[in-house]
Amino acid sequence: MVNITAPLRIGYVLFPAFTAIDVFGPLNVLNLVSITHNMTLSLLSTDLEPVSVDRTVINGAPTGMLASSASPNFTQFVLPTHTFASAPALDVIFVPGGAGSRNTNATQPHVDWLARRMDGDPDLRYVMTVCTGTALLARTGKIAGRNATTNKAAFNWVKSVEHAQDVNWIAKARWVVDGNLWTSSGVSAGTDMTLGWIEHLYGRNESESIRVMMEWNALNQTDDPFAEYYGLV
Amino acid sequence: MVNITAPLRIGYVLFPAFTAIDVFGPLNVLNLVSITHNMTLSLLSTDLEPVSVDRTVINGAPTGMLASSASPNFTQFVLPTHTFASAPALDVIFVPGGAGSRNTNATQPHVDWLARRMDGDPDLRYVMTVCTGTALLARTGKIAGRNATTNKAAFNWVKSVEHAQDVNWIAKARWVVDGNLWTSSGVSAGTDMTLGWIEHLYGRNESESIRVMMEWNALNQTDDPFAEYYGLV
Repeated sequence: MVNITAPLRIGYVLFPAFTAIDVFGPLNVLNLVSITHNMTLSLLSTDLEPVSVDRTVINGAPTGMLASSASPNFTQFVLPTHTFASAPALDVIFVPGGAGSRNTNATQPHVDWLARRMDGDPDLRYVMTVCTGTALLARTGKIAGRNATTNKAAFNWVKSVEHAQDVNWIAKARWVVDGNLWTSSGVSAGTDMTLGWIEHLYGRNESESIRVMMEWNALNQTDDPFAEYYGLV
Repeated sequence: MVNITAPLRIGYVLFPAFTAIDVFGPLNVLNLVSITHNMTLSLLSTDLEPVSVDRTVINGAPTGMLASSASPNFTQFVLPTHTFASAPALDVIFVPGGAGSRNTNATQPHVDWLARRMDGDPDLRYVMTVCTGTALLARTGKIAGRNATTNKAAFNWVKSVEHAQDVNWIAKARWVVDGNLWTSSGVSAGTDMTLGWIEHLYGRNESESIRVMMEWNALNQTDDPFAEYYGLV
């Protein structure tokens, strides 16, 4: 267990068409932990405009991987609290995945900001990625030789992004810890990883009390039925 | 399997301090289903102001059950798409839970609107509640004699709300189906229920394809370890 007494300053990166549970699963855990442990949260984006969940609507037309014949009003938006330019000092950065992570241009500011924070920021203690958020982490070029995992349906795509060939990809893992890097498999795995991280920070009693409040059916770090399902092992 | 061909019009009720996964777990399922099945979503509130997740911040001070010493900027907001006054015709209404469900005054407009929709709206085919959202459903007075479940940590509180004594509460169930009413246990159970409902609507292949995309570790309808954990059976 890590002995943390100061307020933990957490930042969550948002980009258009992020996946809902990649953000709100871990945040549900953190919202509950914050009742008894002092932490702050910043939701970070390029600007303060609402950020779309799972799909992006431009001029009334749904766009991107999840576009369908659904009405344009089928969309959810979340408000950021800070821009990258105004981001405060952070101990922890979370990066979600989702269809929008495949948009290299739209996510380049996120990758650039993450690279700067990873490159010598003395405050930064943990970088946590969920799902294809690991693709953004790999694109920083800062995790050469490190162990990491990602979404199993998108595994081979993530392994193809810039600098990804330098990463030691672990196919069968619910999440992977390598020093200050915590990377999870797809979507729901991020919430299991966050519970595991809370255990690491504050002990098993704390993580279990949160898990049962959420009535969450957790998988352990090495439980990964989806690697086999998607033919990766 | 229900034979649904027309677009399914879904409405999700939002109130201040709703629980994150109660909304974004089921919506993650629906966002994925909507790639191949035509559906629309409306996010409904009393007005179009951003709605807070898990805690409410008023004049810079966090309030409500989840208030803590965290910074006021530790909060998440979601944008509604419709007010109750402008809500479109709906086939399905979802009601989440959360600390805010205990605020009887703040949620009375939600209860009143739900009661009107349940009282003879020919379009309404399903009412789905997650977690303590069942308390709002019970308060409509429209589910006397019906079977229902709710959050296990808050079970006895929900049984104490107005009109709840007329409901047949099922303690041990991940979710309960009684005709057009689908009610789930706490937080994560809403996502299992939504997957079960997708199976009911579109078949097991569809619900399983969504579940594995989400790398979701589901519990079945009768699997409920939390009823025992909280001493309800």
